[in-house]
Amino acid sequence: MAPLVLIFSIFLLSFSSSISSQKVHPLDPLTPSEFTLIQTIVQKAYSGSNHNLTFQYVGLEEPEKATVLQWQSKPHSVKPPRRALVHARSNLQTLEIIVDLSTRSIVSKQVHVGQGFPMFTEDEQVAASELPFSYGPFIESIKKRNLNISQVVCTTLSVGWFGEVTPKRSEIKVQCFYTNGTANYYLRSVEGITLTVDLDDMKIVQYQDRIRVPVPKAEGTDFRFSKQKPPFGPRLKGTGVVPPNGDPGFKVDGHVISWVNWAFHLGFDVRVGPVISLASIYDIEKHKYRRVLYRAYISELFVPYMDPTEEMYFKTYFDCGEFGFGQSAVSLEPLTDCPANAVFFDAYYAGQDGSPVKTTNAICVFEQHAGNIMWRHTETGLPKEVREVRQDVSLVVRMVSTVGNYDYILDWEFKPSGSIKAGVGLTGVLATKAVPYTHIDQINRDVYGAFLAENTVATHHDHFLNYYLDLDVDGQDNSFVRTDLVTRRASGNNTPRKSYWDIVRETAKTESDAKIKVGLRPSEYTVINPNKKTKVGNDISYRLMPGSVASPLLTSDDYPQIRAAFTNYNVWVTPYNKSEKWAGGKFVGRSRGDDNLEIWTLRNRKIENKDIVLWYTIGFHHVPCQEEYPVMPTLSGGFELRPANFFESNPVLKVIPAMHVSWPNCTTHH
Amino acid sequence: MAPLVLIFSIFLLSFSSSISSQKVHPLDPLTPSEFTLIQTIVQKAYSGSNHNLTFQYVGLEEPEKATVLQWQSKPHSVKPPRRALVHARSNLQTLEIIVDLSTRSIVSKQVHVGQGFPMFTEDEQVAASELPFSYGPFIESIKKRNLNISQVVCTTLSVGWFGEVTPKRSEIKVQCFYTNGTANYYLRSVEGITLTVDLDDMKIVQYQDRIRVPVPKAEGTDFRFSKQKPPFGPRLKGTGVVPPNGDPGFKVDGHVISWVNWAFHLGFDVRVGPVISLASIYDIEKHKYRRVLYRAYISELFVPYMDPTEEMYFKTYFDCGEFGFGQSAVSLEPLTDCPANAVFFDAYYAGQDGSPVKTTNAICVFEQHAGNIMWRHTETGLPKEVREVRQDVSLVVRMVSTVGNYDYILDWEFKPSGSIKAGVGLTGVLATKAVPYTHIDQINRDVYGAFLAENTVATHHDHFLNYYLDLDVDGQDNSFVRTDLVTRRASGNNTPRKSYWDIVRETAKTESDAKIKVGLRPSEYTVINPNKKTKVGNDISYRLMPGSVASPLLTSDDYPQIRAAFTNYNVWVTPYNKSEKWAGGKFVGRSRGDDNLEIWTLRNRKIENKDIVLWYTIGFHHVPCQEEYPVMPTLSGGFELRPANFFESNPVLKVIPAMHVSWPNCTTHH
Repeated sequence: MAPLVLIFSIFLLSFSSSISSQKVHPLDPLTPSEFTLIQTIVQKAYSGSNHNLTFQYVGLEEPEKATVLQWQSKPHSVKPPRRALVHARSNLQTLEIIVDLSTRSIVSKQVHVGQGFPMFTEDEQVAASELPFSYGPFIESIKKRNLNISQVVCTTLSVGWFGEVTPKRSEIKVQCFYTNGTANYYLRSVEGITLTVDLDDMKIVQYQDRIRVPVPKAEGTDFRFSKQKPPFGPRLKGTGVVPPNGDPGFKVDGHVISWVNWAFHLGFDVRVGPVISLASIYDIEKHKYRRVLYRAYISELFVPYMDPTEEMYFKTYFDCGEFGFGQSAVSLEPLTDCPANAVFFDAYYAGQDGSPVKTTNAICVFEQHAGNIMWRHTETGLPKEVREVRQDVSLVVRMVSTVGNYDYILDWEFKPSGSIKAGVGLTGVLATKAVPYTHIDQINRDVYGAFLAENTVATHHDHFLNYYLDLDVDGQDNSFVRTDLVTRRASGNNTPRKSYWDIVRETAKTESDAKIKVGLRPSEYTVINPNKKTKVGNDISYRLMPGSVASPLLTSDDYPQIRAAFTNYNVWVTPYNKSEKWAGGKFVGRSRGDDNLEIWTLRNRKIENKDIVLWYTIGFHHVPCQEEYPVMPTLSGGFELRPANFFESNPVLKVIPAMHVSWPNCTTHH
Repeated sequence: MAPLVLIFSIFLLSFSSSISSQKVHPLDPLTPSEFTLIQTIVQKAYSGSNHNLTFQYVGLEEPEKATVLQWQSKPHSVKPPRRALVHARSNLQTLEIIVDLSTRSIVSKQVHVGQGFPMFTEDEQVAASELPFSYGPFIESIKKRNLNISQVVCTTLSVGWFGEVTPKRSEIKVQCFYTNGTANYYLRSVEGITLTVDLDDMKIVQYQDRIRVPVPKAEGTDFRFSKQKPPFGPRLKGTGVVPPNGDPGFKVDGHVISWVNWAFHLGFDVRVGPVISLASIYDIEKHKYRRVLYRAYISELFVPYMDPTEEMYFKTYFDCGEFGFGQSAVSLEPLTDCPANAVFFDAYYAGQDGSPVKTTNAICVFEQHAGNIMWRHTETGLPKEVREVRQDVSLVVRMVSTVGNYDYILDWEFKPSGSIKAGVGLTGVLATKAVPYTHIDQINRDVYGAFLAENTVATHHDHFLNYYLDLDVDGQDNSFVRTDLVTRRASGNNTPRKSYWDIVRETAKTESDAKIKVGLRPSEYTVINPNKKTKVGNDISYRLMPGSVASPLLTSDDYPQIRAAFTNYNVWVTPYNKSEKWAGGKFVGRSRGDDNLEIWTLRNRKIENKDIVLWYTIGFHHVPCQEEYPVMPTLSGGFELRPANFFESNPVLKVIPAMHVSWPNCTTHH
């Protein structure tokens, strides 16, 4: 059974499911039946000592890259193993287990002896957030505040690490909000109460009721259309995108998506969300697909808040490693989250007990017709004006991950010109705290954020997303090249010019050469294939085009910054190492930063003409504003990977334009 | 007669022209009949001394801002003057003439005594580019190269300024290309020949045939689909955007466009292209339109090439002030330059003899449905999951200006959330020179660019676009505020954190306070209205969200850099001054940089709580690559103006979503 199941978009008139091939791809995510099998195997193995073993992470243990590539070129020449990686928690220990599905056996198991804890499960978060309601002091605190406890909702927040020597237990903080009259309880903090829960024992180990502040009012917080009061507006018009004959424009074969000149494998992981693998582009001149990416995904998201006070200081989230971008994926809504021509896919992951959990419509894929121009030129200098224009089109892979209050829109966009764009949109609800003030003029102490409404401060914070980009630019062995633009003095004898700029290329030899803060100097960054050249002799390469970057502002000795050291540079390059998957480290909860991208690169390994991985961090510093209350208009960022001498010439020069479709006989229904 | 004439997009089924009001708006561009009237008035006034008077620039002389604003609030209370500004050239002099159209008289005339020359006309460029064909030495040079002169095309290039003490004559350089077998002659340089033409006398004053290099071959240069050979591909699918009932989604009244919650005036100027004026957004809570922008346009585009040799050193173009973005606007192609739901507008300007010249379909306006998410949130923490999503939509105003080889796609995008995005797409053909090499390994001297094909080097260059942004954030008097994000050490006593960041706001008092290179430190930039606050007390403001920025790499003593000093900072703020329109100065041709944004700001005028103008420069350093041969896939940049405490809360919270339209009865025709 395929774990990403195609469902019909509402406009699919004649489009029939193209999951025709039931062939398993070695990078396919684990299927529901595989999760069940893993559950059985692991539970059996630990049945003796099994003191409530919990499945914290279950994901594909990918085969060796060489095996996958061999399988891809000759599917019958090799049978890649089908294995799963399990992070479990049992008897206060974290277990790392590798299960082989074909032999139905555990091929490796070990107790994690270092720092850090695995991902939280949904179940333990739900359980922890329910504890306060049977906890006397909490009930008392709510009563003292004259709040109706049936309208209180509690949420779970990772505790971070702040110098504790050896945290032995997985803990989580719990804070609560008031729903009474709104669905948007994140704007109604029951301020001053913080509980700490031991997740292993599932009990409250610390309780604080420190300060009392009025709960911000419900009025104006709800985002549901059904709860709005006049005046309404503005009114949007209903122009729409139509797929002719219900054809979404791309083909789906298992998890492999083919579109225009692209083919890639679309996976899903409970920790990182969508995984793009084996992305290759068809070169019409070379008559073959050429690989660009072996594997790409968001490896970590670090969200530190900038309020050092008791209720907020610990808010330094690692959203992938702690909460799971895949686990936090929400069902996408047809026509609004994705346009009418989108195709939706379900996703599965293992719940805490190991059994499969389904997220309906977790990913959508659609052709994007934004009205942009792919390329054009009007040549007016000829006797008869010449004009040639091609309209652009993209294929977008989208997932939305809602980690508590924030909704992250995660896009991968493929363009016929060879560009791959990664986009992230920040929306949802800001993290706020309640303050006693109703006007900014009353504020007489630091509130560490923006005052957005009566009694409401949205805390200053950052978002740093690290992208794992295992580029294979036309082959496995690549080099990373920094091209600096440098000012040259013109000689003066032969030219009236005094200056110009030229380029200086430097190939990174080792990891330390490739640690780069983008923007400090004018440079371009490329991953080249040093073993291949274009016909006229240029290095075949892809270029990283930075978008929104930000550098960390925490001091380097601060605990959250030590843990999130991957934010110290925007660019890092490592030699491919199957075990180095997540920039923040494997076990991120309460981690001390002793196993992460920065630590790995201290070995300063060779990266020239090797199979290399580019780790790229984009960032946002966020000073909130009133427009983001009660729900944020999307704030977008991203970057682009763009071919640079990868092709001999413009790969979309000879594109066959879409026939213009007219709909003369349409009847529109509102 | 309205100078922007609405034509019917091919999908306009029932949309009838909405140019219902014939009321003249004081910012309306000059109409064809007005151009004719200006021509008559000026020619009559100069009939005595008229030694071939040429109209180099004719544009609206805008009324005083106070007058326009008074007219807008009470159209019958004031009758703004209708005037034109004329830059003419006569008897080796540059004339500045102001013509009053209602009194049919010249109200001001003066001879320009400073440096610099006005815009080139199309006619003089055509005339100059034809001179070589009757010039013996040139004919000889072509013959020596064994080229067929009937296949040679010459183009005009501004001469720049390189220290000449007082250039008295308007000059232009001419270089030539070989079309033989291609429409893309820019890739077939007849290298080594440069002519200099005196435009006043329209004669060749300098001729150089310096070096001889093989003309790059025609093969592979053409971009016309009809000239391509197999293999073709990739094939794009024909999904399209459909305007229900042919309604483009916006209203046009004269030059005023109203859409969703926006209203603005769309003008056109031969020098700068599209002009956005009086952009206001309807505030549903305050029940009124609130002004954001008084006037916005691209004031200058500086394109310096980085090759100091004889044939290239002078290529330091000012595309607005020398060639005219409006003059260079090309006719947009329905369905490719702009999507099916676009509405097209014609534009007019004065030709060299003063009579009106029409550019058909010079501007298009369309609703953009890109499938993006305006805002969303899924609330999973409630007993019943709540999900609310709004799909985004924009209104795009687009013009394409083709200045020689380059095509600039100029977009203004309005969003219901209050954002205004400026976008620029670079496409067209790279400027190249011919070199004797057929492989990169043969290159044994600096070629100052990228080797893209046999005998072809695309020169390194920059593009710097300066945007004139006369923001009126909810009123005329505004201040510019820089908000720095600064690291704070946490006290240590009360928190386990060691650091956080906070904000420090600084209001720019004078022009020197607001000269900013974006990216040097983490900062936000806002234009605030210091006279208004939100209910809870925040400054009402709009925020500048930088996109692609670049800093100049020429030395500050280099002539082109002195002229283009506006690129020294990304941000400049000046007090509004009707005469300060163009960042590169008024007369840019051969200018010496003594009248430009940098010079104006040396006065260091007060800018706090004044009517201020934000000048923002975006930039691209361009190292070409083979994918950009023979025509460039669009490279995009831009920035965003985003409301920040302008509204009391999310202005699209209560948006009325579009009804979902289905087309069950569509017949599609290919």
